Amino acid sequence: MTDKPTAPDLGRLSLNSATCKPYTLAECVAAAKAAGLGAVGPWRDRVQEVGVVTAARIIADAGLRVSSLCRGGFITARDDETAQKALADNRLAIDEAATLGTTELVMVVGGLPAAYELMSMPHTPADGTDKNLVAARQRVADRIGDLVPYAQDKGVRLALEPMHPLFTADRGVLTTLGQSLDIVTDFSPEAVGVVVDTYHVWWDPDLEVSIARAGREGRISSYQICDWTLPLAANTLNSRGFPGDGYIDFPTITQWVAEAGYTGDIEVEIFNEAIWALPAAETVRTMAERYSDLVLPYL
Amino acid sequence: MTDKPTAPDLGRLSLNSATCKPYTLAECVAAAKAAGLGAVGPWRDRVQEVGVVTAARIIADAGLRVSSLCRGGFITARDDETAQKALADNRLAIDEAATLGTTELVMVVGGLPAAYELMSMPHTPADGTDKNLVAARQRVADRIGDLVPYAQDKGVRLALEPMHPLFTADRGVLTTLGQSLDIVTDFSPEAVGVVVDTYHVWWDPDLEVSIARAGREGRISSYQICDWTLPLAANTLNSRGFPGDGYIDFPTITQWVAEAGYTGDIEVEIFNEAIWALPAAETVRTMAERYSDLVLPYL
Repeated sequence: MTDKPTAPDLGRLSLNSATCKPYTLAECVAAAKAAGLGAVGPWRDRVQEVGVVTAARIIADAGLRVSSLCRGGFITARDDETAQKALADNRLAIDEAATLGTTELVMVVGGLPAAYELMSMPHTPADGTDKNLVAARQRVADRIGDLVPYAQDKGVRLALEPMHPLFTADRGVLTTLGQSLDIVTDFSPEAVGVVVDTYHVWWDPDLEVSIARAGREGRISSYQICDWTLPLAANTLNSRGFPGDGYIDFPTITQWVAEAGYTGDIEVEIFNEAIWALPAAETVRTMAERYSDLVLPYL
Repeated sequence: MTDKPTAPDLGRLSLNSATCKPYTLAECVAAAKAAGLGAVGPWRDRVQEVGVVTAARIIADAGLRVSSLCRGGFITARDDETAQKALADNRLAIDEAATLGTTELVMVVGGLPAAYELMSMPHTPADGTDKNLVAARQRVADRIGDLVPYAQDKGVRLALEPMHPLFTADRGVLTTLGQSLDIVTDFSPEAVGVVVDTYHVWWDPDLEVSIARAGREGRISSYQICDWTLPLAANTLNSRGFPGDGYIDFPTITQWVAEAGYTGDIEVEIFNEAIWALPAAETVRTMAERYSDLVLPYL
């Protein structure tokens, strides 16, 4: 009898549904289960198209966990009416997360009012000229405060996702883990956490220190892996790659996350049109290989 | 007799030659002088094509200052031979700055070895896989140390330019003012400074604090203005705009720079193919208008 190589343990690996964007929730779940993954991280559109109760059953029937729900946020509006609408939608997202049985609701907080037209978001003429980044960041902090009691009541954590400065103007005025941790010190770590997404934070000179702090403060909601590839795609939102295809040092960052005490799921969330064109099974196979090589040995 | 409106004082405004990339140094100097600017900031290629002594004379004859020389840097190489070549080229750039009569040599420090092939830079096969960002940043600090005695001897300051995280992989592993100030604490402020380029640093949550610190430590070498426009151009290097055409809050950042005690030139450095297609006089007129509206009143 020869030694059979041990298959890598994919129990902590999670498929974020954006990685297989053209596929339904049921198709994503089937691909994740077939490959031996432990979890999925669905986006709200894929949940809503079948209904959240059915979505929860599809995932539970496959024996998978829900690592997070993507996404709430876009809470930087200046006018009260738009802000109230955004808060209502975030409360709905909190409900959906609770029904799905995940504690983590990923929050992409939104950009500058001056970018709302570009983003096809509701806005007033005055918004079109508002480039006050300091004030927009303060509104994020205030509105997280507005949402915390509701989230706590439902047992859901608001997982703030600092975004690459590529997206500061239009999608996310939070840019670093340290900044995100600074604005949530008043809230319990059960109510507000942070997402460590390699794509968004890999360049940060304070990354090691901030990951350690996030761990110490009990706030690491999610570890997401995705690579920084060059040249950037024409649509920079979709310019991400499988771990290993770009410039990010996954072993090092993974060690920092592990040393910070994170024991949760590792989600693969990649926006890339070439990857979306692949069969889901092939995408999941590639991400499992890269996880096994670049992440799992360092956990 | 009616009141004649006072023309805005453009004495601190400087034309970086990259903004008028297709034009020779003499053409840039003529356009700057005709518009009443006080200075130019030439790139080395435009200096070298006429020779540095002639370049210095062209600028002095027009009665303009040299606000900075662009650029030295690219000092992240791992192997000794490539590193020594880079240091030799930086010493030449220091000589050129001294001859031109500017104290400020802008330093774009370089990216990860793994990106050298993409950047057509000399590299070994081992470089192709090196994504160690922490080590690359340490090499920058070490090589700045190597250059400091030569720069001090020539009366030239190494002006470190933190770059937008868009460029961390391929062009500049220094990403924030705070990080840049941290690595140069051992060197005199006459020997090593930092560049505040709005395009590169506008998103930084610590920007106000870091600008104040740079001023307190006497290290602001240059204030460069250029806007963050969206969507990004296909070549992301050239995706910059005139102040006012994008999302950056120039009045606020300018106030921070003024409060930090900066009294030097304000350089306009824009990489944009549409702007390069304009007559130099039109480019300079537009930048003077934007400077007068968005920057000058806040100095």
